Amino acid sequence: MNSKEMIKEFSQVDLKRRELKGYPEIIYGAHKTASQILAISKQIDIVGQPVLITRLSKEKYLNIKNELPKGTYYEGGEIFYTRKQDQMGKGNVLILSAGTSDYKVVEEAAVTSEWLGCKTEIIQDVGVAGIHRLLSKIDKIRQASVIIVVAGMEGALPSVVSGLVEVPLIAVPTSVGYGANLEGITTLLAMTTSCSSGVSIVNIDNGFGAAYQAALIIKLINKEV
Amino acid sequence: MNSKEMIKEFSQVDLKRRELKGYPEIIYGAHKTASQILAISKQIDIVGQPVLITRLSKEKYLNIKNELPKGTYYEGGEIFYTRKQDQMGKGNVLILSAGTSDYKVVEEAAVTSEWLGCKTEIIQDVGVAGIHRLLSKIDKIRQASVIIVVAGMEGALPSVVSGLVEVPLIAVPTSVGYGANLEGITTLLAMTTSCSSGVSIVNIDNGFGAAYQAALIIKLINKEV
Amino acid sequence: MNSKEMIKEFSQVDLKRRELKGYPEIIYGAHKTASQILAISKQIDIVGQPVLITRLSKEKYLNIKNELPKGTYYEGGEIFYTRKQDQMGKGNVLILSAGTSDYKVVEEAAVTSEWLGCKTEIIQDVGVAGIHRLLSKIDKIRQASVIIVVAGMEGALPSVVSGLVEVPLIAVPTSVGYGANLEGITTLLAMTTSCSSGVSIVNIDNGFGAAYQAALIIKLINKEV
Amino acid sequence: MNSKEMIKEFSQVDLKRRELKGYPEIIYGAHKTASQILAISKQIDIVGQPVLITRLSKEKYLNIKNELPKGTYYEGGEIFYTRKQDQMGKGNVLILSAGTSDYKVVEEAAVTSEWLGCKTEIIQDVGVAGIHRLLSKIDKIRQASVIIVVAGMEGALPSVVSGLVEVPLIAVPTSVGYGANLEGITTLLAMTTSCSSGVSIVNIDNGFGAAYQAALIIKLINKEV
Amino acid sequence: MNSKEMIKEFSQVDLKRRELKGYPEIIYGAHKTASQILAISKQIDIVGQPVLITRLSKEKYLNIKNELPKGTYYEGGEIFYTRKQDQMGKGNVLILSAGTSDYKVVEEAAVTSEWLGCKTEIIQDVGVAGIHRLLSKIDKIRQASVIIVVAGMEGALPSVVSGLVEVPLIAVPTSVGYGANLEGITTLLAMTTSCSSGVSIVNIDNGFGAAYQAALIIKLINKEV
Amino acid sequence: MNSKEMIKEFSQVDLKRRELKGYPEIIYGAHKTASQILAISKQIDIVGQPVLITRLSKEKYLNIKNELPKGTYYEGGEIFYTRKQDQMGKGNVLILSAGTSDYKVVEEAAVTSEWLGCKTEIIQDVGVAGIHRLLSKIDKIRQASVIIVVAGMEGALPSVVSGLVEVPLIAVPTSVGYGANLEGITTLLAMTTSCSSGVSIVNIDNGFGAAYQAALIIKLINKEV
Amino acid sequence: MNSKEMIKEFSQVDLKRRELKGYPEIIYGAHKTASQILAISKQIDIVGQPVLITRLSKEKYLNIKNELPKGTYYEGGEIFYTRKQDQMGKGNVLILSAGTSDYKVVEEAAVTSEWLGCKTEIIQDVGVAGIHRLLSKIDKIRQASVIIVVAGMEGALPSVVSGLVEVPLIAVPTSVGYGANLEGITTLLAMTTSCSSGVSIVNIDNGFGAAYQAALIIKLINKEV
Amino acid sequence: MNSKEMIKEFSQVDLKRRELKGYPEIIYGAHKTASQILAISKQIDIVGQPVLITRLSKEKYLNIKNELPKGTYYEGGEIFYTRKQDQMGKGNVLILSAGTSDYKVVEEAAVTSEWLGCKTEIIQDVGVAGIHRLLSKIDKIRQASVIIVVAGMEGALPSVVSGLVEVPLIAVPTSVGYGANLEGITTLLAMTTSCSSGVSIVNIDNGFGAAYQAALIIKLINKEV
Repeated sequence: MNSKEMIKEFSQVDLKRRELKGYPEIIYGAHKTASQILAISKQIDIVGQPVLITRLSKEKYLNIKNELPKGTYYEGGEIFYTRKQDQMGKGNVLILSAGTSDYKVVEEAAVTSEWLGCKTEIIQDVGVAGIHRLLSKIDKIRQASVIIVVAGMEGALPSVVSGLVEVPLIAVPTSVGYGANLEGITTLLAMTTSCSSGVSIVNIDNGFGAAYQAALIIKLINKEV
Repeated sequence: MNSKEMIKEFSQVDLKRRELKGYPEIIYGAHKTASQILAISKQIDIVGQPVLITRLSKEKYLNIKNELPKGTYYEGGEIFYTRKQDQMGKGNVLILSAGTSDYKVVEEAAVTSEWLGCKTEIIQDVGVAGIHRLLSKIDKIRQASVIIVVAGMEGALPSVVSGLVEVPLIAVPTSVGYGANLEGITTLLAMTTSCSSGVSIVNIDNGFGAAYQAALIIKLINKEV
Repeated sequence: MNSKEMIKEFSQVDLKRRELKGYPEIIYGAHKTASQILAISKQIDIVGQPVLITRLSKEKYLNIKNELPKGTYYEGGEIFYTRKQDQMGKGNVLILSAGTSDYKVVEEAAVTSEWLGCKTEIIQDVGVAGIHRLLSKIDKIRQASVIIVVAGMEGALPSVVSGLVEVPLIAVPTSVGYGANLEGITTLLAMTTSCSSGVSIVNIDNGFGAAYQAALIIKLINKEV
Repeated sequence: MNSKEMIKEFSQVDLKRRELKGYPEIIYGAHKTASQILAISKQIDIVGQPVLITRLSKEKYLNIKNELPKGTYYEGGEIFYTRKQDQMGKGNVLILSAGTSDYKVVEEAAVTSEWLGCKTEIIQDVGVAGIHRLLSKIDKIRQASVIIVVAGMEGALPSVVSGLVEVPLIAVPTSVGYGANLEGITTLLAMTTSCSSGVSIVNIDNGFGAAYQAALIIKLINKEV
Repeated sequence: MNSKEMIKEFSQVDLKRRELKGYPEIIYGAHKTASQILAISKQIDIVGQPVLITRLSKEKYLNIKNELPKGTYYEGGEIFYTRKQDQMGKGNVLILSAGTSDYKVVEEAAVTSEWLGCKTEIIQDVGVAGIHRLLSKIDKIRQASVIIVVAGMEGALPSVVSGLVEVPLIAVPTSVGYGANLEGITTLLAMTTSCSSGVSIVNIDNGFGAAYQAALIIKLINKEV
Repeated sequence: MNSKEMIKEFSQVDLKRRELKGYPEIIYGAHKTASQILAISKQIDIVGQPVLITRLSKEKYLNIKNELPKGTYYEGGEIFYTRKQDQMGKGNVLILSAGTSDYKVVEEAAVTSEWLGCKTEIIQDVGVAGIHRLLSKIDKIRQASVIIVVAGMEGALPSVVSGLVEVPLIAVPTSVGYGANLEGITTLLAMTTSCSSGVSIVNIDNGFGAAYQAALIIKLINKEV
Repeated sequence: MNSKEMIKEFSQVDLKRRELKGYPEIIYGAHKTASQILAISKQIDIVGQPVLITRLSKEKYLNIKNELPKGTYYEGGEIFYTRKQDQMGKGNVLILSAGTSDYKVVEEAAVTSEWLGCKTEIIQDVGVAGIHRLLSKIDKIRQASVIIVVAGMEGALPSVVSGLVEVPLIAVPTSVGYGANLEGITTLLAMTTSCSSGVSIVNIDNGFGAAYQAALIIKLINKEV
Repeated sequence: MNSKEMIKEFSQVDLKRRELKGYPEIIYGAHKTASQILAISKQIDIVGQPVLITRLSKEKYLNIKNELPKGTYYEGGEIFYTRKQDQMGKGNVLILSAGTSDYKVVEEAAVTSEWLGCKTEIIQDVGVAGIHRLLSKIDKIRQASVIIVVAGMEGALPSVVSGLVEVPLIAVPTSVGYGANLEGITTLLAMTTSCSSGVSIVNIDNGFGAAYQAALIIKLINKEV
């Protein structure tokens, strides 16, 4: 008998998740092999649910692209999807980033937000070292329903933005930085201990998670209406 | 010349915050002296804004209670307020906690949520070590607009709850635990790396911060309607 | 004189271990060169003891496969053995995992458990984000004598499972996750501070260690009978 | 409305736990007030289940001793119980400690083990700095079914003991030490990375948890017989 | 022979420091006993050098105040001095703080700066959560020669201020905060990984150190002129 | 709609920075792609501002060198610039390093300092393990206006140097070391807790940041004169 | 049966240690109760071995002084002994400290060294911030056989001293410092990553351990002669 | 002017070190380029001092072997030397290791010890998981003057060995292990908090440092005689 025979069930795609969460199961690709990703994608696609794969490296994508269901791949954000959810009528998501170096995370957030049905916009490069850049966009920023702030290094941007708006802000610490940045741990801890009210946090570089939380808020608006 | 003379301005109560954030400035009492807290409270009260003081220890409270504006003090949550904001018509906040030991944080969150105008309920003691307790409350849980989950130790509760609902969930790690709990740091990091989608985090024991974020979401619903 | 001449004894295979521990010495391959692994394998094989090599990368395995004693190699779990111990009559080991990404560790645990003489089964992909998946297997889970739970990220699964059974549970934190996961350290600390009784822990990704502990328990049952 | 009115249920004693785990719910006293502990104790006692309270400081105990159900309090281990479970016929638990300074944790483990129905013995002061002390007890040690090893500082004792026996060993790191000991974190991490097979770990100073795990193993023997 | 006899020299007041550093030796009181502080103070005073004692708790001060050379004690900043250095003609130091809670550190910095001969001013309570407060002081801020920024929590203020001025800025992280703040370590690391150029850092709560560095810069201006 | 369409503005070169800070925006190349670096360089160059790119790896440089504005590349310090700022007449910067292994950081600091208009000199290999090397340069060291000290391992050099001079000293911890050095974190923390007065710190390996701070001090001298 | 009855042996004073180590067992008092310390002291004294108790707080000492064997107590170093070992003829130990604040550790080291039979001297207050103080003692320092260096904060002193002598140096990091000092952890790590050869380390504040190591070296000289 | 012109002195080989320390300067190769290593080697060789290079990777060695002074290279320990110091007549160094995986560090220690003039022997593979292996060598171990113990994982071996001998023991933590081992940091901290007296520590994997310290002790014996 080998280890395969010991396995009662290999991979249990959670098809019931759509009913519970309002969205189908999403595939986190980082720790899976290309063939595991492919197998799960097919199980979701075959029952008619839309597919979203995050952290799908270009190398893995190229390995399986011919067998994957038809869809779109974003190289910057390492994200793939088949068809998107229908766009929701009320509310919108604005993604702000501190610098150009954060683009990878921004794209993961933006594509996820769109896929989940949110109207989504991005304003980049408004880090606090040149605060006039942020202040010059203030009207646009105040029109958002939910704001996602993506920043690395000392992670100061969410504190400043949150003080200027009255909507929920989700902060995404990034691993952009070096030395005392500790690969984003400092950014995470700094954002968590923000002096501003109205900030909540997701994991380092987790653009997906921020967008998911934002989409649940947008969905709430649309449901309550 | 002494150090007082060097000070251009002592304490600048941010009376403009109400206009920007939709809520008045709130006083974080932990690192302030009783007399600093009293002085700031009076500045806010005198311009007709409602006062909320968090982390007001019983000892400090007793020192200044006779001079404070008229209000209510909660000893468990170490929180004081004068009059509350008007209750908002749409949406409600549900606070879940893993165990009785988390009550202090639960009370801070609940009082803040009420003060900010949210309909608020609490379900305690539904930790994952006896999952039937949580599952028996599932109908109640699914009626909430926003869920705050307060838990210490390994911080598993938000992951389980988030898999059962389709609304935003804000997780509050608590410092309940010992040894490898690292005074809540392990709980914070564990919640941040949750396998569930739709979870965002605030600081350790920060019941106030979770309630503030929840209230901004409830306010959004009421504004959009 | 060179450094070799200074060495009194190179490698002292612990042939006495079988007598003391009930199992022969097992080779931990991660920090050894292929030639060191080969030399020790031969010393064990030549005295008639069965060989188990863990953390034997595919690359090292391919280097020495022609000279190794006859046996079986598992690429996923990076583990090799010659003949297995006799299967014990009483008791059984069940290995649960949170997600597909944990398979590498699951295979190391399963092959080790089998090799040590335990009846062994695997149920994968029952992570807490979709708790119904776990609950649907509850009858199977309650039939196990010892349960090994393999999980990464926030490591919540052992706490939930342990609350549902009355047998010992050994938790294996994995390095599956990113950012605040700290390469499994968060998972390890979270599991160590579990709110559930009846959980003990082994090192990160240490499927072997969990299986060894489980086998000692199964052996105890068989000895006591 | 005050915060009490927001609470749907205060404290949900898990009376079903006995059915699921084979043992009643046990009260962890460290983060609870004396009055919370008293209320929960009464709820358990009134339905005829035996009570065990851990981490009950002497001060809290003295506050409520007159109202608690009749029982025994151990000041060293800060532990209280009413009647014990019936002693199980097969198997025994041996608790080893490195030094006199670990006694507090030893007593918590020993009382818990007894209360859970295990035959229990203690051998103290066999730390590795004088290895002859340990070796002189080897016959006694080899008669145990399950061994709990309690040690602080560098936590070396489990590795040595585990190499001498063929039964499961549960290691309890203690916070005995200073400086680089990091209040037991070093001990915990060192034990987790032990070079010996057959060691699993519980939280720092968690004598209770080790005894619970040991009791589940002893129960397994008795059930299988 | 006792331990005193083994000591060749007890305490070597560094009277040569004034010649090397331009300022006399300063007494760091935190880890010294009141009698050690007194003895060293007298040694400095007797040779005609001015005395500065930092981290002199009120309790220690009251113990020795009658024997200390004549001087001034600041209770907030826990700092004492005899006569000050002559004020330097060129340049000025501005101390900004994020919140009222940072006052203790601000006072240590301000008194030290004055004592070292710098024209010194303080602006408090300009934290980034209400950025308008900072921007309203911008003219005053741009007139400073050296800026000391004192902030706790996420430590964002230095990054914002540094982007607005063209003079050196010295950032002092404070231990104001809780949980993820890690008693100021997060603040320190965040400031160290600031995205703004022109920021350097001193130790947590080290108002003295920032002022000393500022004074060396002011002295340089006066020397070069 | 794809993610590009969601972006309101891609990269906002901060052309106003020169006015605010006295120096143009500088490009941090480490987390940017070669094409991002190129695009930003051109935006700065086209408006007539000088370009400085730090952390520009040789590989990225070779990719874009033909399209970059005309300039000079330093392979050791991974730094590129077009024309330098005019040299300032007053003051000078001295860079000291503990060992040859620190050269990479020294070169980044030296080139930056020169580019910012400072007279700059370097003395290498004066680590504290052979203190006579440092003492033999003392006259040269005492002639500097600002001293940058670059050191790895235990980071002792700034403490010793600072005791010998009366000018500001900026310490740069480097990641030279292994094991307990923690990739420079130990060096950073050690320098931050220096027993010497007059030391401030920048991030690990941040030669650029130290030079920028030094240049602001030199500029201050020149402005005040 | 109570927990006492479960104990096979309470405290096993290691009377054989003197034979193995050349010195009798020494009592570490920090985690023991006064009555435990007293009991062990009597067991050692009664068989005619000399007693040394470290980390004996004044409070515990006063509790048991009347019952302890006749001896000497040092309040600064919190150390007690009965008679000392005979002084060894060859070699001597020199203890250097960085500052007055380190005296507690210095006294623990000095008394231990004397008790173990070493000729012992102390030079205090030669920290690196005023390197001339150290250099002025260089002749005395070069006459030592073994040097113990006690320092807190950045822990630079061992690196400098070790470069000036050709004898073994044992470094004792102390917890003197604050903030980034991390209660001596930074000092420990910095000393461990020293750039100087010939330095080995003991635990934070472990004056006893350094003296013990020094004494073993002195004993070796005397034995070899 | 380019950065080379700013350098006053490139690399200052410390030829005076031999006079101060009794041994010539030794080259730490890890952070130096092959050409830096070559240049320094030649400077030492040309004045007639013997050369030792540590952490010289095979790749760097092959690059410069034809230009290096004539000598011997050890690939395992990554160490090179020209002629050795004369062997000292008195005393000997014994190197013990826990397992085969530690050989790299053992070889660095052994070659260094020999080069510094010590009689040197090695006993490998006596880790604590099979304590009989260590005990069977006890006579050999007790004949050593100084013992170096090399071990990874939980680092228990020094505590056990130190309890068996009356000579100084220098412990070298290695990075052998995974997960909770934290690349040797756990081993380092565990050894530092050893319960055994007579142990001092060097940096992780620092076989060189342990041997250097051992050689200074051996030299002391020979000098005193």
